[in-house]
Amino acid sequence: MSTTLPPGLVNHQIRLASRPVGLPQASNWSHTSEPVAEPAEGGVLIKALALSLDPAMRGWMNEGKSYIAPVGIGEVMRAGGVGQVLASRNPHFAVGDYVSAGLGVQEYLSLSADQFARAGLAKIDLRVGSLTQWLNVLGMPGMTGYFGLMDVGQPQPGETVVVSGAAGAVGQTVGQLAKIKGCRVVGIAGGAAKCAWVVNELGFDACIDYKAGPSAVRDGLKAHCPSGVDIYFDNVGGDILDTVLARINRKARIVICGAISQYNNTTAVQGPKNYLSLLVNRARMEGIVVFDYAERYPIAIAEMAGYLRDGRMKSKEDVVTDLQAFPDALLKLFNGENFGKLVLQVTDSS
Amino acid sequence: MSTTLPPGLVNHQIRLASRPVGLPQASNWSHTSEPVAEPAEGGVLIKALALSLDPAMRGWMNEGKSYIAPVGIGEVMRAGGVGQVLASRNPHFAVGDYVSAGLGVQEYLSLSADQFARAGLAKIDLRVGSLTQWLNVLGMPGMTGYFGLMDVGQPQPGETVVVSGAAGAVGQTVGQLAKIKGCRVVGIAGGAAKCAWVVNELGFDACIDYKAGPSAVRDGLKAHCPSGVDIYFDNVGGDILDTVLARINRKARIVICGAISQYNNTTAVQGPKNYLSLLVNRARMEGIVVFDYAERYPIAIAEMAGYLRDGRMKSKEDVVTDLQAFPDALLKLFNGENFGKLVLQVTDSS
Repeated sequence: MSTTLPPGLVNHQIRLASRPVGLPQASNWSHTSEPVAEPAEGGVLIKALALSLDPAMRGWMNEGKSYIAPVGIGEVMRAGGVGQVLASRNPHFAVGDYVSAGLGVQEYLSLSADQFARAGLAKIDLRVGSLTQWLNVLGMPGMTGYFGLMDVGQPQPGETVVVSGAAGAVGQTVGQLAKIKGCRVVGIAGGAAKCAWVVNELGFDACIDYKAGPSAVRDGLKAHCPSGVDIYFDNVGGDILDTVLARINRKARIVICGAISQYNNTTAVQGPKNYLSLLVNRARMEGIVVFDYAERYPIAIAEMAGYLRDGRMKSKEDVVTDLQAFPDALLKLFNGENFGKLVLQVTDSS
Repeated sequence: MSTTLPPGLVNHQIRLASRPVGLPQASNWSHTSEPVAEPAEGGVLIKALALSLDPAMRGWMNEGKSYIAPVGIGEVMRAGGVGQVLASRNPHFAVGDYVSAGLGVQEYLSLSADQFARAGLAKIDLRVGSLTQWLNVLGMPGMTGYFGLMDVGQPQPGETVVVSGAAGAVGQTVGQLAKIKGCRVVGIAGGAAKCAWVVNELGFDACIDYKAGPSAVRDGLKAHCPSGVDIYFDNVGGDILDTVLARINRKARIVICGAISQYNNTTAVQGPKNYLSLLVNRARMEGIVVFDYAERYPIAIAEMAGYLRDGRMKSKEDVVTDLQAFPDALLKLFNGENFGKLVLQVTDSS
């Protein structure tokens, strides 16, 4: 079942060199390369085709207890990705199979059989979705949006759902799914172009451009959520979280998925000073970590694939090419420059 | 059914004269009096015996949307209380009956039949609990603790429950109830005397004196919650909330009952900067307002009465006498001077 690799194949990698304070700098990364070896008996060698760039990466670079161990200094930076089996010594994987896995920021990943589960190795079907969709609505962000909305948010038809980072990977899934479930959906995104896309292409009822002015979010919520907010899916934290908290309904659900506005703080995280709105409104704020739902990914993917097929779910990816562009590309997430799910396409560089 | 009132009976009252900024001042109150009149057909006249002084009162003095309308300027200050029927023109209430109701900070309250429900008028049985216990574990604080712990916290045997304001009215109920439900219980209270009482009299596993030093709560949680915190019942907010958030377990429940440390702020409320611990731990923070559970009070009271009877539930009240002492007595809540449920005993002043 094995294949002879082309000779002299080199794996370029990006490793965490030091822990950033604030925004990651070039000095936080090291660029390394090593020869690519044949997989061991039972293992596979995967050639990375595209990597997922996610806000969560910033958290993985920090020391300290979190929902997942930090990336160690000197380790290849953690990243989910999709790729193709280049060599296989495992009967379940054939050369040419498309797979998704935790590939890391590198061109090749060799996995022994006992590493499959930990890496989340799974075959993907390109008839169901494109490579980049498998990193977006069918991938980790899509699963995060799906389970965050459905399990934590528990939307009911007619309720009003607000989602921040609406044009991002998780946000676009959440909003479209909430529409499918019969909710009124209001997005919050940065810039007129993103907002127009969210409304015109994704079919949100409205989208608030938080960059339009200091009271844009407050005024927008007032205008577009006349019946208050039943579910807020929060990807950003900070002032926007506070502003939404001021407009929630009784028994509202705040899904805490992320807080991208706070990830590069060099001071303490800004806590939601309006959190007592939870008391006044008997509301709930709850965190979601997608890995908890791994057993149910196939069910969610099947449902989402149906929506992709019938056109009710669309996706947008912002594709950056070249592995070496990773450090700069990552920063796009934190200045809001990306438009859609940020994907790093891995081209041959050796 | 009516009774002739003694002639010249005067009702002394304390009214909200203006809205406080920060701690309530003497100037925020006005002291008034008016004659006591016979009740209307179908109504009752109640003589107040004891009033409940609660941290929530501070919130009722503020303008703005909350879970209950603010007390209007010039209105008698809102207060729950227990009293005795002094005159009745209603067949369901006899002179001498003991009742609980929203009496207000005054000596007498006349209710027409259509005001009974709104005032929460209910007979109380002094064989079940003393007058002051009916304002404590059998009253609003007890119900708050009961439903906050049982419905929002959902304690499981063997879990660790932390409660702040442990020597207060809600805290003592929560902690004892959690012990009865098989949990490990750690209180947080101010001062060695309160902590000793919470452990020795109420049977908490430990109690942390937050006044013992800047790292007292952090160190105490580390020492007394070796398996982390599954439920945190928060009555105080501020730094203590943040410190507990840093030590919660997966799927922890944070019951937001109050934030007494923040009620007299003249600046913004301090939001919990560790709120992303909810994400990391897939935890939930949820508000409780006791009025939502009014239909189930009788069931909870019956359960609590059983614990009082068999000695598993104890109570402590801090009784202040004289209606005119209300303004000063209320401040005891905010400097932590009260030891147990703060009750204002209404003595004859006319």
